[in-house]
Amino acid sequence: MPVLGHTQYGKAEVRVVRVYRDREPHEIADHNVSVALSGDFTDTHLTGDNTRVLTTDAVKNTVNAFAKEAGDAARTPEVFGLELARHFTGVPQVSRVRVGIETYPWRRLEHAGTPHPHAFARDGGHVRTTTVTRTTGGDEWVTSGVTGLVVLKTTDSEFHSFYTDRYTTLAETTDRVMATEVTAQWWHAEPPGDWNASYPQVIDTMTSAFAGHHSLALQQTLYEMGTQVLTAEPGIGEIRFSLPNKHHFLLDLSPFGLKNPGEVFHADDRPYGLIEGTVRRDDTTDPGPAFDPGQGW
Amino acid sequence: MPVLGHTQYGKAEVRVVRVYRDREPHEIADHNVSVALSGDFTDTHLTGDNTRVLTTDAVKNTVNAFAKEAGDAARTPEVFGLELARHFTGVPQVSRVRVGIETYPWRRLEHAGTPHPHAFARDGGHVRTTTVTRTTGGDEWVTSGVTGLVVLKTTDSEFHSFYTDRYTTLAETTDRVMATEVTAQWWHAEPPGDWNASYPQVIDTMTSAFAGHHSLALQQTLYEMGTQVLTAEPGIGEIRFSLPNKHHFLLDLSPFGLKNPGEVFHADDRPYGLIEGTVRRDDTTDPGPAFDPGQGW
Amino acid sequence: MPVLGHTQYGKAEVRVVRVYRDREPHEIADHNVSVALSGDFTDTHLTGDNTRVLTTDAVKNTVNAFAKEAGDAARTPEVFGLELARHFTGVPQVSRVRVGIETYPWRRLEHAGTPHPHAFARDGGHVRTTTVTRTTGGDEWVTSGVTGLVVLKTTDSEFHSFYTDRYTTLAETTDRVMATEVTAQWWHAEPPGDWNASYPQVIDTMTSAFAGHHSLALQQTLYEMGTQVLTAEPGIGEIRFSLPNKHHFLLDLSPFGLKNPGEVFHADDRPYGLIEGTVRRDDTTDPGPAFDPGQGW
Amino acid sequence: MPVLGHTQYGKAEVRVVRVYRDREPHEIADHNVSVALSGDFTDTHLTGDNTRVLTTDAVKNTVNAFAKEAGDAARTPEVFGLELARHFTGVPQVSRVRVGIETYPWRRLEHAGTPHPHAFARDGGHVRTTTVTRTTGGDEWVTSGVTGLVVLKTTDSEFHSFYTDRYTTLAETTDRVMATEVTAQWWHAEPPGDWNASYPQVIDTMTSAFAGHHSLALQQTLYEMGTQVLTAEPGIGEIRFSLPNKHHFLLDLSPFGLKNPGEVFHADDRPYGLIEGTVRRDDTTDPGPAFDPGQGW
Repeated sequence: MPVLGHTQYGKAEVRVVRVYRDREPHEIADHNVSVALSGDFTDTHLTGDNTRVLTTDAVKNTVNAFAKEAGDAARTPEVFGLELARHFTGVPQVSRVRVGIETYPWRRLEHAGTPHPHAFARDGGHVRTTTVTRTTGGDEWVTSGVTGLVVLKTTDSEFHSFYTDRYTTLAETTDRVMATEVTAQWWHAEPPGDWNASYPQVIDTMTSAFAGHHSLALQQTLYEMGTQVLTAEPGIGEIRFSLPNKHHFLLDLSPFGLKNPGEVFHADDRPYGLIEGTVRRDDTTDPGPAFDPGQGW
Repeated sequence: MPVLGHTQYGKAEVRVVRVYRDREPHEIADHNVSVALSGDFTDTHLTGDNTRVLTTDAVKNTVNAFAKEAGDAARTPEVFGLELARHFTGVPQVSRVRVGIETYPWRRLEHAGTPHPHAFARDGGHVRTTTVTRTTGGDEWVTSGVTGLVVLKTTDSEFHSFYTDRYTTLAETTDRVMATEVTAQWWHAEPPGDWNASYPQVIDTMTSAFAGHHSLALQQTLYEMGTQVLTAEPGIGEIRFSLPNKHHFLLDLSPFGLKNPGEVFHADDRPYGLIEGTVRRDDTTDPGPAFDPGQGW
Repeated sequence: MPVLGHTQYGKAEVRVVRVYRDREPHEIADHNVSVALSGDFTDTHLTGDNTRVLTTDAVKNTVNAFAKEAGDAARTPEVFGLELARHFTGVPQVSRVRVGIETYPWRRLEHAGTPHPHAFARDGGHVRTTTVTRTTGGDEWVTSGVTGLVVLKTTDSEFHSFYTDRYTTLAETTDRVMATEVTAQWWHAEPPGDWNASYPQVIDTMTSAFAGHHSLALQQTLYEMGTQVLTAEPGIGEIRFSLPNKHHFLLDLSPFGLKNPGEVFHADDRPYGLIEGTVRRDDTTDPGPAFDPGQGW
Repeated sequence: MPVLGHTQYGKAEVRVVRVYRDREPHEIADHNVSVALSGDFTDTHLTGDNTRVLTTDAVKNTVNAFAKEAGDAARTPEVFGLELARHFTGVPQVSRVRVGIETYPWRRLEHAGTPHPHAFARDGGHVRTTTVTRTTGGDEWVTSGVTGLVVLKTTDSEFHSFYTDRYTTLAETTDRVMATEVTAQWWHAEPPGDWNASYPQVIDTMTSAFAGHHSLALQQTLYEMGTQVLTAEPGIGEIRFSLPNKHHFLLDLSPFGLKNPGEVFHADDRPYGLIEGTVRRDDTTDPGPAFDPGQGW
């Protein structure tokens, strides 16, 4: 007989922009907030009885209202997410809340040679991500992350001595272009003192590791980046990476009488290698649902 | 101390098109194949020793070669995926394989009033999805699915009598437009006799349920769709849905002296409600890793 | 000295959905409407004096209100566009209006084996486009068009005997897969009797021509498609095509001991050939601004 | 009778990456190049006779080969485009060439506190664009441009005293958030001394104008930005802007007992105002085909 399994629901992609204009210069926080609620919502599925359903419209209203009520806390996505999660676990029929936030960076524009107090440009390089998971028992898990961080090195990357089978035709190389678009997410076993300081420190550690590492495989680079982040940030218990290998293929220019000693490449779209991996601290507790999006697929 | 956790890697988005031209009319199979391998790949992460690494280039070659070698099997994504998965679990250091396939539907074009044997148009309505997960022990899990299936009903949808809190301002309604873009995935506890017949049957059952159901909540519609699919297809053990509520807001035309009795709507982009849920058979075994993408986030 | 040149402004992408529920079965019209106004708007640019500026918010309101006021006319994008254009050229300071509409097709869902009167699925194959340009003198130009129409033929396509230079390495072929994603726009020198009948007839003529034509170059196919449309539809004065050559590269499977006689292809994303061309009637007047988006780049 | 009108063809989106590794630190140029050729190509359309058709594959090869042959010139998209255009107008049957280039900016990564000689991150803020148009007569037109430059000001923007009609409901405001995503293209009546210095100067002038201007309408801001660019760069003859008004709607938080004095906004996706305009120098010659994409729609 068909029965109801796991469910969750909420409002996705609430695009709330908070302006701080009670100070000079003005500041801005630009978030895309998604909230997923789990709990005792069987009735609405089985009979359409919505008595226990907090509307997704109210979820949206709450996000917007908290952008005001939270005051300065709305500048820090991890804290903003925690305040929202604590609110929603107070709804009686909710047992678990997951708040996901994408935060878009802005930089201050210059005018007449000095930073302007009211004007900004979107800094498109990458997006900061946050997830907060909270259960009614009061347990909380916070991850921070990044997406869209494209990095490339022009040398210091080899790939050879690999396993071969009858479908292997790849040539070995001791010098290639390596590029990837980093998606990463790290779980704070202990919260840092300052969330807004921690995030750029992790990005700096990660990109510095990418830059300085002589790579024999993208997998090795991944592990190096993870290891350096965990070493630099003792509160981080685990970090997960998804690294597409953005292939740059050396072009054969010999038909045109040209040599190409690692100078001209075709940046291909698809297919791409996809390298995923986790680096964790061996003395940390289990991350529980920190990385669990809830629906499981 | 940092240690390596779960890893997987492979080639993503191999865009292989198989033409069957040894028959009249010609046929076409259009797949986007991604393969993820897990197993004994610690060395490449820790030391850059690639001795055990099957290159992602070889993974791509294998997908392309199998599109030829598999013959007619490449027309059926579930079977194509199984053949690939069985091959890759034969690579010694691999313990688990996950093959994901997106299959793009094409319809035959007409010429001079009759179906043309060699010409096709992409049927953009929705994309058929398949995942095959296989472990070296020989256990196999197959899911089929759909993404991009946009459906809408102009009436027969109510939403009222819901829970209210201080952030609730939504008006109740007994007649609204309901629309969603169905992403669904169902696990075959038992394989159907004919995969290529099973898929359109599930889609028909799902859309017929959506059409015929008088809805009190999108959650109730989700459960109805899932229940009808499980009832019609006894081999399906579990189905999971992700249903964005694509809001159509009734426009207030009264400032222009116009009534709007459910006729003119604004189709909004963001935010959207996101309703997710599972319907499973109560006498089926656990789906195991059938829905597990591997990296867990 | 800097001076103001051509300007235009308006509201873009008004997503209005019109439901016809005063009949059984219900019908639906789903439009994405953009309006651009040109005229005497110098003051707002030079001094910020908005006295003559009809707000883009009012433009949006007008589109929405007309979806009600136009009644059945809103089902036909060309007529809906004409009504909007005639309204906006009545705004005193406007000298030229351009209305662009994307119309999304829906098909009726089945329930219990019969078409359901209230339920639909988006028919994602392609999007119908319309532009109406009107000047205050009362001149009107209407184009219809299509975008996203992906077609492919598995044979009946050759490409050889081409010009060669020192950068030419392409092999000649007498049998290849040819695929393109048709964007086309045709100008009605005379309006057809029934716009909603004309559109599918043009699509059928175009795809039938694509299917039946033995192609020596995508350029030749383009000309054949245009010629057949103009021949079948005497009111159409000119048709313009933009045809990306979606390359399907025959894969070399010989390293794996496999022959590949036109069976397995890689569908590449970029780069792509881009073939653009116009077919017009030699006895038709100039299309004037029919194809002119206004800003000129 | 149907006849052939204007045509053009070429290869679009050649993704060529040039690495300069003969110096320390390494440098990188990352281009997306599209080439469109017009000329005597009637035969291929009418009869499939390709005798005069330079293949689009050869066009791609030429772009790639020139990335090597052009040496340092490939670092400057305007110069790279000019070299390509001069080459292609040397093909006998070509009468006009248009080269379009998107150039992706990269910034150097740091490692151990110093800039790393071989590692980069994509600087996603905006994309530099270039077009070069050349005819066989030797006339050349070069435009530079930008796309994806998102800017926002938190105050110093008013919008009121506008024209009203029966569809106008917008409230007047003396303080709003103004945001836009700048697409601009400027024609060099005279080439600057240093293309790679000119581009950031124009961006700086444009964003400084946006920041410092007290705006009564986005149209006025557009004109101010254009005027300041033309004033600062005497070689630029004309600049064209396309400025979507990315609406930030002040949220009504009063149902929740909250005031919202310009602090919390909803960033809406669609519809959006679209403001387009040209600022030109009154003593400059006509830009000719500088802004003309060729196919005219």
